[in-house]
Amino acid sequence: MKFIKDLKTGDRVADIYMCKHKLIATTKNGKEYYSVTLQDKTGTIDAKIWEPYSDGIDEFDDTDCIDVFGEVTSFNGALQINVKRARRCREGEFDPALYLPVSSKNIDEMYNELLGIISGIGNPYLRKLLEEFFINDKDFITLFKKSSAAKTVHHGFIGGLLEHTLSVTKLCTYFCTAYPKLNKDLLLTAAICHDIGKVRELSLFPVNDYTDEGQFLGHIVMGCEMIGVKAAGIQGFPELLKQQLQHCILAHHGEYEYGSPKKPSIMEAVALNLADNTDAKMETFTELLDNVQEPGWQGFNKFFETNIYQTKVD
Amino acid sequence: MKFIKDLKTGDRVADIYMCKHKLIATTKNGKEYYSVTLQDKTGTIDAKIWEPYSDGIDEFDDTDCIDVFGEVTSFNGALQINVKRARRCREGEFDPALYLPVSSKNIDEMYNELLGIISGIGNPYLRKLLEEFFINDKDFITLFKKSSAAKTVHHGFIGGLLEHTLSVTKLCTYFCTAYPKLNKDLLLTAAICHDIGKVRELSLFPVNDYTDEGQFLGHIVMGCEMIGVKAAGIQGFPELLKQQLQHCILAHHGEYEYGSPKKPSIMEAVALNLADNTDAKMETFTELLDNVQEPGWQGFNKFFETNIYQTKVD
Amino acid sequence: MKFIKDLKTGDRVADIYMCKHKLIATTKNGKEYYSVTLQDKTGTIDAKIWEPYSDGIDEFDDTDCIDVFGEVTSFNGALQINVKRARRCREGEFDPALYLPVSSKNIDEMYNELLGIISGIGNPYLRKLLEEFFINDKDFITLFKKSSAAKTVHHGFIGGLLEHTLSVTKLCTYFCTAYPKLNKDLLLTAAICHDIGKVRELSLFPVNDYTDEGQFLGHIVMGCEMIGVKAAGIQGFPELLKQQLQHCILAHHGEYEYGSPKKPSIMEAVALNLADNTDAKMETFTELLDNVQEPGWQGFNKFFETNIYQTKVD
Amino acid sequence: MKFIKDLKTGDRVADIYMCKHKLIATTKNGKEYYSVTLQDKTGTIDAKIWEPYSDGIDEFDDTDCIDVFGEVTSFNGALQINVKRARRCREGEFDPALYLPVSSKNIDEMYNELLGIISGIGNPYLRKLLEEFFINDKDFITLFKKSSAAKTVHHGFIGGLLEHTLSVTKLCTYFCTAYPKLNKDLLLTAAICHDIGKVRELSLFPVNDYTDEGQFLGHIVMGCEMIGVKAAGIQGFPELLKQQLQHCILAHHGEYEYGSPKKPSIMEAVALNLADNTDAKMETFTELLDNVQEPGWQGFNKFFETNIYQTKVD
Amino acid sequence: MKFIKDLKTGDRVADIYMCKHKLIATTKNGKEYYSVTLQDKTGTIDAKIWEPYSDGIDEFDDTDCIDVFGEVTSFNGALQINVKRARRCREGEFDPALYLPVSSKNIDEMYNELLGIISGIGNPYLRKLLEEFFINDKDFITLFKKSSAAKTVHHGFIGGLLEHTLSVTKLCTYFCTAYPKLNKDLLLTAAICHDIGKVRELSLFPVNDYTDEGQFLGHIVMGCEMIGVKAAGIQGFPELLKQQLQHCILAHHGEYEYGSPKKPSIMEAVALNLADNTDAKMETFTELLDNVQEPGWQGFNKFFETNIYQTKVD
Amino acid sequence: MKFIKDLKTGDRVADIYMCKHKLIATTKNGKEYYSVTLQDKTGTIDAKIWEPYSDGIDEFDDTDCIDVFGEVTSFNGALQINVKRARRCREGEFDPALYLPVSSKNIDEMYNELLGIISGIGNPYLRKLLEEFFINDKDFITLFKKSSAAKTVHHGFIGGLLEHTLSVTKLCTYFCTAYPKLNKDLLLTAAICHDIGKVRELSLFPVNDYTDEGQFLGHIVMGCEMIGVKAAGIQGFPELLKQQLQHCILAHHGEYEYGSPKKPSIMEAVALNLADNTDAKMETFTELLDNVQEPGWQGFNKFFETNIYQTKVD
Repeated sequence: MKFIKDLKTGDRVADIYMCKHKLIATTKNGKEYYSVTLQDKTGTIDAKIWEPYSDGIDEFDDTDCIDVFGEVTSFNGALQINVKRARRCREGEFDPALYLPVSSKNIDEMYNELLGIISGIGNPYLRKLLEEFFINDKDFITLFKKSSAAKTVHHGFIGGLLEHTLSVTKLCTYFCTAYPKLNKDLLLTAAICHDIGKVRELSLFPVNDYTDEGQFLGHIVMGCEMIGVKAAGIQGFPELLKQQLQHCILAHHGEYEYGSPKKPSIMEAVALNLADNTDAKMETFTELLDNVQEPGWQGFNKFFETNIYQTKVD
Repeated sequence: MKFIKDLKTGDRVADIYMCKHKLIATTKNGKEYYSVTLQDKTGTIDAKIWEPYSDGIDEFDDTDCIDVFGEVTSFNGALQINVKRARRCREGEFDPALYLPVSSKNIDEMYNELLGIISGIGNPYLRKLLEEFFINDKDFITLFKKSSAAKTVHHGFIGGLLEHTLSVTKLCTYFCTAYPKLNKDLLLTAAICHDIGKVRELSLFPVNDYTDEGQFLGHIVMGCEMIGVKAAGIQGFPELLKQQLQHCILAHHGEYEYGSPKKPSIMEAVALNLADNTDAKMETFTELLDNVQEPGWQGFNKFFETNIYQTKVD
Repeated sequence: MKFIKDLKTGDRVADIYMCKHKLIATTKNGKEYYSVTLQDKTGTIDAKIWEPYSDGIDEFDDTDCIDVFGEVTSFNGALQINVKRARRCREGEFDPALYLPVSSKNIDEMYNELLGIISGIGNPYLRKLLEEFFINDKDFITLFKKSSAAKTVHHGFIGGLLEHTLSVTKLCTYFCTAYPKLNKDLLLTAAICHDIGKVRELSLFPVNDYTDEGQFLGHIVMGCEMIGVKAAGIQGFPELLKQQLQHCILAHHGEYEYGSPKKPSIMEAVALNLADNTDAKMETFTELLDNVQEPGWQGFNKFFETNIYQTKVD
Repeated sequence: MKFIKDLKTGDRVADIYMCKHKLIATTKNGKEYYSVTLQDKTGTIDAKIWEPYSDGIDEFDDTDCIDVFGEVTSFNGALQINVKRARRCREGEFDPALYLPVSSKNIDEMYNELLGIISGIGNPYLRKLLEEFFINDKDFITLFKKSSAAKTVHHGFIGGLLEHTLSVTKLCTYFCTAYPKLNKDLLLTAAICHDIGKVRELSLFPVNDYTDEGQFLGHIVMGCEMIGVKAAGIQGFPELLKQQLQHCILAHHGEYEYGSPKKPSIMEAVALNLADNTDAKMETFTELLDNVQEPGWQGFNKFFETNIYQTKVD
Repeated sequence: MKFIKDLKTGDRVADIYMCKHKLIATTKNGKEYYSVTLQDKTGTIDAKIWEPYSDGIDEFDDTDCIDVFGEVTSFNGALQINVKRARRCREGEFDPALYLPVSSKNIDEMYNELLGIISGIGNPYLRKLLEEFFINDKDFITLFKKSSAAKTVHHGFIGGLLEHTLSVTKLCTYFCTAYPKLNKDLLLTAAICHDIGKVRELSLFPVNDYTDEGQFLGHIVMGCEMIGVKAAGIQGFPELLKQQLQHCILAHHGEYEYGSPKKPSIMEAVALNLADNTDAKMETFTELLDNVQEPGWQGFNKFFETNIYQTKVD
Repeated sequence: MKFIKDLKTGDRVADIYMCKHKLIATTKNGKEYYSVTLQDKTGTIDAKIWEPYSDGIDEFDDTDCIDVFGEVTSFNGALQINVKRARRCREGEFDPALYLPVSSKNIDEMYNELLGIISGIGNPYLRKLLEEFFINDKDFITLFKKSSAAKTVHHGFIGGLLEHTLSVTKLCTYFCTAYPKLNKDLLLTAAICHDIGKVRELSLFPVNDYTDEGQFLGHIVMGCEMIGVKAAGIQGFPELLKQQLQHCILAHHGEYEYGSPKKPSIMEAVALNLADNTDAKMETFTELLDNVQEPGWQGFNKFFETNIYQTKVD
């Protein structure tokens, strides 16, 4: 397959791409045509179908994969595919992983690493709670493995929620060594659960957008409630332990203005906020550097609120 | 009974007051004495027991009511009771209502007015939800009637939560007339439920302080969860309706920095925030004016962030 | 008359519309044409006059009403009138109310309701002051009835200032019932006068833009000064009463950063700020909902600083 | 006369001082005494009158000058006058200038310098306006010369308003040379008038406190209104010129959060804000350095939000 | 030479202009052309070279001066040069001063005025330090005279750093007269040195952009370090004096959020911040007024955070 | 030796303590006495010397160690030593480590661990730079080992700077494993050097207070300059590498308002800020928990801006 990032003017195209967005437009002469954004995991390209209702042009919708035949041209300095034929593909004809952003790490290996950490939790109530989510709740497991951690910012790919969760949890493991006042069982449980509400806040790919309840309630409150429901099902789960765990979830954004209804009151909640923030910033910078076109100064970056530079050490 | 606000230098005292706080102190000579704050519903007064371990002086603790015999003196310009005898009273000897701040309105009348509003809710799911709390849940009802709405600020008295809830709800009723785009059933239900989490956030009088879960989770998240649990028990409760109602609860402080994890996204949530804010400010100003000693300028007030003046219109 | 919101591709147009804005542009061939925005009270539409200096095309300027003959076409997905003939109309040929945004409520009825409230003010000085503006000052009355309450945000239409004033005043009437510490005469007078400076801050429609003094001084300071001038003409008007009334005007935006040079120091000023803020937010949300194209999520809204959703309760 | 700053333990006192504040207090034995703060222009000292209702102790109130006979003692490391006799003085017995803070510069010389600047204003309307205040309005002139510029911060002394006004005006004169785009007549007029509202915002010494209208309206709005009234009395005063002048007054605090209802829109308003801010900061630092006890670091200063140091250049 | 600001449709062009930016673009037909921005000191104009690889069209790059032959046309309401011939010029063929923004004042005269101030510094260490920079360091002098004071905002022209420095220094001279507590030698030295780091923060014209070290370290820290290095080379330079001077440099932006790592602790640092701020605002407003097209309201200005108006006093 | 934290009422005291602060006070009778704060590494206690100028009471000053003979009493609920004899000790009579707060970790072991990390730096210039400080500069090494990391907040003890530096460096080592885009040599060098300016910002114990240059320049700018000086002495040190390292130092507080004149532009600077912030917060919380008197809620904490709770997991 020829990936979108490798296309250049004059190329013939005869490959399957995903339709990210289709728009019906009108020329100055009043004739309708399709303006389509095609995507694969390497990027997107504009495409035009000038004769949308003719033979060889199937009907298709957003997120369909279509087999495209056409030619790459250049318009106003940007590449464009002039589509001659477009056939809607059936599931099985293509490998979805080629069309959607996905973690560069192996999802099952990461999940097993997470299960290993869970098995090491000493407090029986906390370990049982984690097992209820990560071993016994099949629907949850499926969603958790596929979810991204965000719509647009860091870890915005399939497996992103798992990758972020594992990274935060391992950072917390390091913290427990460096700062022995931390309660390891509580902190690691909080780390593993801190973003579980995201399986309900964001729909899965290819949509990967906020759900209604995601917008109305947010992953922080939903994650807190999910823990409350599971804990209620565990005989003898200590009330105070549950509250401290839920507090870690509620406070993990660290500040009211970032959507936490509570600021961290216990050391584990402070640690979780630091680990979450660290992984978010390190991953965001990593993704920035992955997309660098030219080394050196990269211009102003809104997230870091300053100009960004790709380090040079020769 | 002689109320604390009416005591003056030279008065003999022979009445029952509540011990708000007892401190064991030492004179310069190393002799122990009790420094006690006595309270009734009209205020507090300092009292000294110079011979704490003598006959006629019972052992007692905070929130006990004690029968005090002594004399009012003046020290450094403030009144003080010099206590000669102090007897710990048993329940039944005194009327608790005399010793704790309590709403100036009739609690049962207010509650009936609230029930009347509930009976007018047209949407069957919302009305059923309200009935589950306010008609069927006896424990909740008991707590709701006795709770204050705050530890220190406005409505910090027995029945305060009910009084504030009713006032906000009636303001919302007015809003529905003035702004017909508002959905009345949703707004009134949200108004009635907006602070129900406070029955768990604050302990009852005479303590009236934050509970552990109050500090860890807060009344906003707890109220949201209480609605989730009750709604789950109502057959066919529409999911989207539940989310919008919970959103109103989560967003009712209006801003992240006031502890709301979501800002209001629907018109009813905006209206609820305005009604809550209005009642808080009007009641706070009312309580300020109730405590004015001299008319005119009252000095700087932290809540209103400016100097306060008692209006004069002759 | 065919309203702009009802036009569709292919329609013949032969009606009078107002020229909101005329731009002289040049085609790639260097030929001049007019690009005109036409408006009526239902909206605006783009129009092109390709032969501006030919017969059948009158000279006209912004805010002129012109009799247009042409055809509706579609360009880049938006409608456009291809104008063949354009005749400038004289006053009398058209009903101005058809071309400008206007309150959906009857202006005279609202004004009478306001007069009714004024007649109920008990304090003779305050009532006299209101009568000087709203009964005796013909120029002021004319402006007050026609003014909008804003250039772009809520109540930005003819009669908007009156509609907003009445709504705020009625809300304050409700407040006086709910919070008896409020001085009703002072609060209602302040509510009625709170935005009177807007008759000088904004010019009338069709311009509806800031005047020089509006920009230099603002409606808050001008309204305060207008009260000072009128009060000076009333024998025996109590100085302190005047200051408290002016304070309510100065403080009605509630915060320095919203342009109030004083924060509210008296309960009536706090109440007026709450009523003004409530009406502004409720009307803004109402106007948003009036313009909803598709139910559900409406995207990010700058005023409310969050995503907005049209409530659904079935 | 022996000034307060020169008193030391053991001194006999037989001089006239002003009573800044008298408090009736009670000893532990229940006996009343007076705790009095005496002041002269060099400072204040605590004084006790142990037998207030005896012969030789007149009745007196705050701001009275009293002839004191007594002895200086030391209590808790601070000096204190033990008063034996206290006689209330009549006007004429003492020189008020000895008891109140006053500008170190000659008030009449400063005023004449200001008049000289006024006589150089070329624009006839602006010069006429200034003459109406500073030459023709005798009451205003009296107040303007005596007023302080503040209750507590910089220029808080008799003549302080004049001294500050002159300093700002001369700074603006310099600006006009350095930045020729500035309109000199407008800027100097605005500088001279920028704080005239303070003659009504603050009462005169010895009280020097906010008046009711000072608190309700503030000197910015009152100064703007005073200009409006005077300008209305000058035939043909150009409306736009008046608005620009008033704008300079309204905007001279520069930011909304400092109480300006408008931010500076014209270059003269920007310049006035800079001159006012510069003089405020330079005078505040000068007063700080005048009060330095030990050179070097002076601790944290709230106004400058950092630790302050007295410069050393040897 | 015909300046860009004087060109109009139909003009023939046969003059030398500087290429500010050259972009290689493609027509719809896939043919490459050059889209060039030409500049002289009066402004910029768009130019098109439709046949870039033909005879008569030299190769050239950004900041080259080229001899252009062509015709002025109008496209979409903006002027454009249709270039027929373009010849790259050699140094010497043109006067660079015609193509770059340059101070309207004489650079050598300003520099001499600065040297005069330096010669008046009484403290031998401070004068010696200034001489090391402004008399003995030839490389520094060359850069200092040519540097702008900014990339985009005020004083963004050749000689701008010198002009700004001189203006700030003279303002400080005035301050020393008005506020005698200021140490003149220290303040003037700090004023002269306050922006010397800019000779390393910004590259010279025509580039005038941030250097690497400018972005990594900033002119404040670099200027502080430059003083440290020079002072280390002066025998006996008092350590405390050096620290106070460096402190003035570090603190001259006045607030942390403007990039100062220290807030002003000494009176001279406060004064320098005020002078720098004043000159920045006055010059910015002056440049705004220099560019006014139509008198009156100039729309919202980001730097002043409000609408700007060109003062009218007739 | 009997440590201060173990003293109780009635104890005889005959041990050496350090005089933290001596105040000469006066009794009501006008008699002078000394009010002294004594300290050892476990805490402080109040002491009174009622006969300061008698036999058996040596003269002594702050930070002297004195041999105290007296008795522990209780005053107003706090312990107090009634001192009978006080002898000023000479160096050698006592072990200073008993009287000053000191790291609970072995300083030489920590230093060796740091040297081990330095020896692993691959880049020859960075390793050489570190060796210049940490191996070759004996004065620096002495200061670095003894310095605290702060006057009042976290790591405010002897060895605190070293302990904090090592902890941040090890955290950065972990980051390099987790986020492979980080340049390990640069990040570890920056971590080791990030607070070196503190050896000049704070004087050593027992004073441990800000120096003049600490207040004027701050450890961030001084640390940056120290690197500049050392790098200038290393042949061929790459200019860009030096700038990036200095940038990490300048930006390590992360935000302007925390005193960083630059925000982090490279990934290593972001990482360093996160590591520094993490160690500061974890150590602060650890020190809080070390000082907990009663488990549970610890009241409002200014640094964490919320109520703090000691985690309970049973």
